[in-house]
Amino acid sequence: MADAPSERTQVHRHSERGDYDRATIDAILDEALICHVAFNDGGGAPRCLPTIHARVGDTIYLHGSKAARAWKALRAGSEVCLVTTIADGLVLARSAFNHSMNYRSVVVFGKAREVTDHEELHTAARAITSHVAPGREDEARMPTDEEYKQTLLLALPLDEASAKVRTGPPKDDEDDRDLPIWAGVLPFVTDPAEPLPSPDLAPDIPVPPSVAGYRRPGRT
Amino acid sequence: MADAPSERTQVHRHSERGDYDRATIDAILDEALICHVAFNDGGGAPRCLPTIHARVGDTIYLHGSKAARAWKALRAGSEVCLVTTIADGLVLARSAFNHSMNYRSVVVFGKAREVTDHEELHTAARAITSHVAPGREDEARMPTDEEYKQTLLLALPLDEASAKVRTGPPKDDEDDRDLPIWAGVLPFVTDPAEPLPSPDLAPDIPVPPSVAGYRRPGRT
Repeated sequence: MADAPSERTQVHRHSERGDYDRATIDAILDEALICHVAFNDGGGAPRCLPTIHARVGDTIYLHGSKAARAWKALRAGSEVCLVTTIADGLVLARSAFNHSMNYRSVVVFGKAREVTDHEELHTAARAITSHVAPGREDEARMPTDEEYKQTLLLALPLDEASAKVRTGPPKDDEDDRDLPIWAGVLPFVTDPAEPLPSPDLAPDIPVPPSVAGYRRPGRT
Repeated sequence: MADAPSERTQVHRHSERGDYDRATIDAILDEALICHVAFNDGGGAPRCLPTIHARVGDTIYLHGSKAARAWKALRAGSEVCLVTTIADGLVLARSAFNHSMNYRSVVVFGKAREVTDHEELHTAARAITSHVAPGREDEARMPTDEEYKQTLLLALPLDEASAKVRTGPPKDDEDDRDLPIWAGVLPFVTDPAEPLPSPDLAPDIPVPPSVAGYRRPGRT
């Protein structure tokens, strides 16, 4: 197993759940639809924004509107902490104390860089569209120059990242194992429901492959 | 509609999505299983932790282990930004630029207070257990004094909170509406799968109501 790339990405609590392999990190980043990005904007508390991300190789792309003030601090290249978490299920122990969750999370620390190169903007726009719905990047109209001008695109290197993963049944204390209380895992599954066509959609346009066959990367 | 309680909770970008009513805020906090908590621990970037929360009236409770170093800065009463986000569906416009998500999110700013009062510890332990699985607080063995001693319990007031909610179909530009591209919403539904009994569970213990009838608060 790989080592933690830095002190702040090292998993101390339940260190057995830490995983520093890029294959693990990449799979979680790719499957998770959204992430939360924390950064300082000069106030007493940091800010934390939920947003969509996309990974291309060793880079995570984030996008926002240049008109959005919440993104201004990020635009200035401040340090960020990005976290994404997939909740796989409830771990229901006999004791409340040993209740837990099965989850897969990734944390990435780094400095956001603003992307201005046209080719990289286009690569990122395709990646973000594909992250949302794989295949959609070949169906949707991709951005115009004017639309790129309105978009703030940020790149975050994956140099400093770690994963934390819990799997398996609850771990009750020895003394609790004979209590007459059910213990186990309740898995969660997120699936797409029936697509809802836009009210102004022409009736002869069929549901495309990106929607009809939708699934998150890594999900079977 | 209520006003924003502070400048930093005011929704500026897509202000029509902002909602400052406590009923909206409470419903999102109660339905969302986990949240992300950002705080400064003295490093260059803030830290952001995924964790389970529970609301009791005007207070959000968070718990961690006193042995976990990631929680030490919080324990000192630092300012936090808590965000929870429910992803309801993909908003697939004809243009990539107008792609969006339907979501419900809440942000709470405030200073965490450490709970040490025994009665409040017990109230919070029941609330957190119930938040994870409603009814489980009457099934599981609740914490001993020794277990409370190992647990860091934090309270965050709901004085400074706001919700941001997007619903409905995509909004394409006028010029794009005749493009032969499918547009609409792909809703997501998270449901529990079959419960997995612990390997060491006695076979005569049935699946309890909290598990067999599991659903998130607010979900039908």
